[in-house]
Amino acid sequence: MIIVLKPRTSQQEADEILSKIEKMGLKPLYMPGVERTVIGALGDERMLGRLHLESHPAVERVDPILAPYKAVSREMHPEDSTIQVGNLTIGGKGFGVIAGPCAVESYEQLSATAKAVKAAGAHGLRGGAFKPRTSPYSFQGLGLEGLKILQQVGAETGLPVITEVVEVADVEAVQEHADAFQVGARNMQNFRLLTALGQAGKPVFLKRGMAATVKDVLMSAEYIVSEGNRDVVFVERGIRTFEGGTRNTLDLSAVCQFKKLSHLPVVVDPSHGTGVREYVAPMAYAAAASGADGILVEVHCNPKEALSDGAQSLFPEQFTELMQRIAPFAEAAGRRL
Amino acid sequence: MIIVLKPRTSQQEADEILSKIEKMGLKPLYMPGVERTVIGALGDERMLGRLHLESHPAVERVDPILAPYKAVSREMHPEDSTIQVGNLTIGGKGFGVIAGPCAVESYEQLSATAKAVKAAGAHGLRGGAFKPRTSPYSFQGLGLEGLKILQQVGAETGLPVITEVVEVADVEAVQEHADAFQVGARNMQNFRLLTALGQAGKPVFLKRGMAATVKDVLMSAEYIVSEGNRDVVFVERGIRTFEGGTRNTLDLSAVCQFKKLSHLPVVVDPSHGTGVREYVAPMAYAAAASGADGILVEVHCNPKEALSDGAQSLFPEQFTELMQRIAPFAEAAGRRL
Amino acid sequence: MIIVLKPRTSQQEADEILSKIEKMGLKPLYMPGVERTVIGALGDERMLGRLHLESHPAVERVDPILAPYKAVSREMHPEDSTIQVGNLTIGGKGFGVIAGPCAVESYEQLSATAKAVKAAGAHGLRGGAFKPRTSPYSFQGLGLEGLKILQQVGAETGLPVITEVVEVADVEAVQEHADAFQVGARNMQNFRLLTALGQAGKPVFLKRGMAATVKDVLMSAEYIVSEGNRDVVFVERGIRTFEGGTRNTLDLSAVCQFKKLSHLPVVVDPSHGTGVREYVAPMAYAAAASGADGILVEVHCNPKEALSDGAQSLFPEQFTELMQRIAPFAEAAGRRL
Amino acid sequence: MIIVLKPRTSQQEADEILSKIEKMGLKPLYMPGVERTVIGALGDERMLGRLHLESHPAVERVDPILAPYKAVSREMHPEDSTIQVGNLTIGGKGFGVIAGPCAVESYEQLSATAKAVKAAGAHGLRGGAFKPRTSPYSFQGLGLEGLKILQQVGAETGLPVITEVVEVADVEAVQEHADAFQVGARNMQNFRLLTALGQAGKPVFLKRGMAATVKDVLMSAEYIVSEGNRDVVFVERGIRTFEGGTRNTLDLSAVCQFKKLSHLPVVVDPSHGTGVREYVAPMAYAAAASGADGILVEVHCNPKEALSDGAQSLFPEQFTELMQRIAPFAEAAGRRL
Repeated sequence: MIIVLKPRTSQQEADEILSKIEKMGLKPLYMPGVERTVIGALGDERMLGRLHLESHPAVERVDPILAPYKAVSREMHPEDSTIQVGNLTIGGKGFGVIAGPCAVESYEQLSATAKAVKAAGAHGLRGGAFKPRTSPYSFQGLGLEGLKILQQVGAETGLPVITEVVEVADVEAVQEHADAFQVGARNMQNFRLLTALGQAGKPVFLKRGMAATVKDVLMSAEYIVSEGNRDVVFVERGIRTFEGGTRNTLDLSAVCQFKKLSHLPVVVDPSHGTGVREYVAPMAYAAAASGADGILVEVHCNPKEALSDGAQSLFPEQFTELMQRIAPFAEAAGRRL
Repeated sequence: MIIVLKPRTSQQEADEILSKIEKMGLKPLYMPGVERTVIGALGDERMLGRLHLESHPAVERVDPILAPYKAVSREMHPEDSTIQVGNLTIGGKGFGVIAGPCAVESYEQLSATAKAVKAAGAHGLRGGAFKPRTSPYSFQGLGLEGLKILQQVGAETGLPVITEVVEVADVEAVQEHADAFQVGARNMQNFRLLTALGQAGKPVFLKRGMAATVKDVLMSAEYIVSEGNRDVVFVERGIRTFEGGTRNTLDLSAVCQFKKLSHLPVVVDPSHGTGVREYVAPMAYAAAASGADGILVEVHCNPKEALSDGAQSLFPEQFTELMQRIAPFAEAAGRRL
Repeated sequence: MIIVLKPRTSQQEADEILSKIEKMGLKPLYMPGVERTVIGALGDERMLGRLHLESHPAVERVDPILAPYKAVSREMHPEDSTIQVGNLTIGGKGFGVIAGPCAVESYEQLSATAKAVKAAGAHGLRGGAFKPRTSPYSFQGLGLEGLKILQQVGAETGLPVITEVVEVADVEAVQEHADAFQVGARNMQNFRLLTALGQAGKPVFLKRGMAATVKDVLMSAEYIVSEGNRDVVFVERGIRTFEGGTRNTLDLSAVCQFKKLSHLPVVVDPSHGTGVREYVAPMAYAAAASGADGILVEVHCNPKEALSDGAQSLFPEQFTELMQRIAPFAEAAGRRL
Repeated sequence: MIIVLKPRTSQQEADEILSKIEKMGLKPLYMPGVERTVIGALGDERMLGRLHLESHPAVERVDPILAPYKAVSREMHPEDSTIQVGNLTIGGKGFGVIAGPCAVESYEQLSATAKAVKAAGAHGLRGGAFKPRTSPYSFQGLGLEGLKILQQVGAETGLPVITEVVEVADVEAVQEHADAFQVGARNMQNFRLLTALGQAGKPVFLKRGMAATVKDVLMSAEYIVSEGNRDVVFVERGIRTFEGGTRNTLDLSAVCQFKKLSHLPVVVDPSHGTGVREYVAPMAYAAAASGADGILVEVHCNPKEALSDGAQSLFPEQFTELMQRIAPFAEAAGRRL
């Protein structure tokens, strides 16, 4: 850890800080300069968090040398991890495609959509039973009824199902009916929920928050993994920027960052990432090319009548075309569909 | 509602949309143009949400004329609302100052801080018992024990207390021990929590999310108010931008926006808004000048030892100076401290 | 154009606006509603710009129906345009790769780099003679001397050369020595420069500004094309966001937007877009997959000694690998290298 | 300077870097750790820029200890600077108000507006002769004719005039007719223009770019001051964010940053900062409270007919009210109007 002192800091204040560092069992290093005095601390700097040196009035800034996450970091686990979601492996040599409607609306709707995406080659089924909606007047999902439909359709088609969990109280029910949890962008820093999922027994697809850096996402994953659940998949789904021509700004370079910093797999959601139906396929291809381990895509048997996010849902025939066209991109990236 | 059709949309598709609008009881208006056909819908356009016209392949875009929020809008309630928090009125002619540590650490720490802020003229006490922290390895708050300390110190000093609630399961306990709930930036779109608070019996300080527009905050408040709890106070606490010299970018013009669009009061948090101790006072003065109804300020009896956010916490003597210097700004804005 | 009036606007004010619209030769449409009165204007709404209706105190907002750009829009020119840069065609069935150092540092440096990228299969050579640098104390480029080196090395290798122009006074010199102009992100709204380039006789690579929406870029291109120079290539190079793990946030969905809204070609700069050497290749592959017409890549014969942007420059052997690996991605996108 | 090496860097590579630092005359410091090796460099680290250590493949990151700007920094010049603009002093105990239309449209328009703002108490007159406009089809300003009108009206009212300069070729003409230059947000990193202004003889109002950090603005000012022109005034005018309810997000905490980091004065432009007429006055008051040295405000004798930015221009009577109401805020901040 590097501690830069404010100009005109007294020797006494510097000594006070040096002594605090030494008491924590680290080796302090004193580097006086003409314009600034810098203090280094050699050893396990994570212990220094307790000193709260950034609060000290003589401290201009504190630059950690080490990342604040450990369990999810590639340094702790140099090999890529793979995560098992029912019969689908995320990570490794495969390229996983999970498709389905934004929300479960009825057995008929989900079943028709699931059959279509299965026929096109999808490996997993997505669909929301609990929907976080910006407006209290919008469709909020079917709840437990939706979970049951999802499980039934998953069983009928042989597709593992993933669905969003929005509250600690629902963790058990979702775990019972689904093969994996999804944490939505708005809950990415709902730390109580993350902790509960860390104690659960199914994989977690963790969506990046709209204002979250890649490192923030890693810290949220650290909550889950440090509680014991090692099965986390990152989901890049765009961040909020000034650009209004798309719903979010899909940050595909985040795939590179996740791969560099962590051993956990990462998938891309080009549907929420763009919010525009005709941009979904090109961004899916780009995701495959960027090195992602898979995609989450919204498909609806009848987008015109979709109760949520219809404008970004693919028609079944568009998804079929996407599956045909994405194969060579995945292959060029060393993956097989 | 204005519906812009894509170029080369057929007459049949336009007719299909016009007929859908008519069936919902609104008056459709057909406006063909050389480059685009535009369709208007006169009447209560909020009913059109059910049509999901934005999902229609022939629709280029949908521009609502009316705001999607109602209960919180100034149009529904032209007069300013005031909110009662214990013996403190937020809104109207007063300027409310709520101060205290980021986190409740012990009875001694809170009591010393509360006495100091009370002596300086603060009207309310803040302090977190449940702390949402980016890192699982950081101090997470004292929980129920912290709530009890908060209530005791509030009673001893005569200051109403506000504290953060992070989960539906905690709503009851917080309501029992505090005078008001605070919803943190990370939970601003935790709709399940908002709904629970809409059914609770204490006021809610709703913090703006890091990626939330003012209109998003209004929609979140609509969740609370539409459930029956009319006592919502907006908190501007900065948004996330590319500027790294401050922790967030405090958006004081949001005060103007909230005042224009809603009847509910708005306070400013210059501590989280800047993250830098020496910027807190000037931004507090600017908040008073902008027309805000009050401020939330972090003060710690010993910031050097604070367990969280010490770098932005004021020393008691700095807070005392702030209180003295802010008075003429509040007066110039037509408020009294 | 749709004009939404403020609540409680008088009939007289509405009539005043209706009459202004009629006088401009458009057909006004009066749509009174319970909560808002809306006015439509049918016809060539671009003429309404002169009315400055957004300045009228009774007007809440003005929603244009048509895009403000014409010459660059796909509607005016439905077919894809191709642009000729020396012997390189940008757009159409090819995928153009333009590589070279950030700055021209010497004949030896440029020549070595150019030979390496040519051998690896690049189609064009890039290199800056006039460098806009954040710090006045950084290397500012060789100027005219750099232009001459560029021209010489281009001639020796048979590669067309593109280089940045930063001021009107330099347009002539750059045109004499280079095959295409590059407008940097910081000059994207230097309208005087754009106008001068609109009167010049070589193609223009127009980089997206750090705070520019896709529509802003289209408007800047409109400056060039409306002056008579139809040869504009858009360059997506990332925008500025809160994410600090990359130098910029590369917005590959902008490729989709440019393709939808305009007929002009678009290339991607993964070097500035990420600022991190090891992310350049994956983002180049993703660019090819997204439908881009080519890439601009920084390569330096000895990045360790580069005078600018060395951290994002590829080593020649890395570029050679990129060229081998990108081919199947370009093919999958229907392009040939 | 602190250099963090990548994990598994060889001793030989570390030695290579240590030796480079030593050769530049700085004292290298070797700090091996379990997870990372860190290298420090004691001395004038600005010399290390030439080493381009960030380009070295063994280097993970480089953290400078010192700011890259010198001439504009408060450390070099601890006292506040004041800048003379004709008979108006910016900085010190005064609070300067510079008002006028966005664009000079005619002698009549400017004269009427100038008389109105003078009567209300303004100290300076603003107005654009060269207008950078997003669309090539918008009014581009009267050019030289506008400069002459500005000078004449300035002389008639006794108000110093400031106006935008957009190109090196215009510097001389602007200097002849105006009392100060304004550099617009879009030209904040037009380094050629900044260099020319550094050699000119009138003060420069430097507007913050839409994607510029405070430190970027300081670097741009460094261009001007390092060329010899010490008279720079920073202008905070908002940055581009995701918030769409205002034209930009006015960052008043930037005033605090500028004051902390630099000795140069800073004024606020609440007109461009919000883009909404009714938010201009509250943000002007907040600017005064934040510690700014003045404001730039758009006023038009007839905003309904303004050729540019009418929606944010004040009516003369609104400006008169602003001047009356701002006085106590300025006084509370220790300033006199």
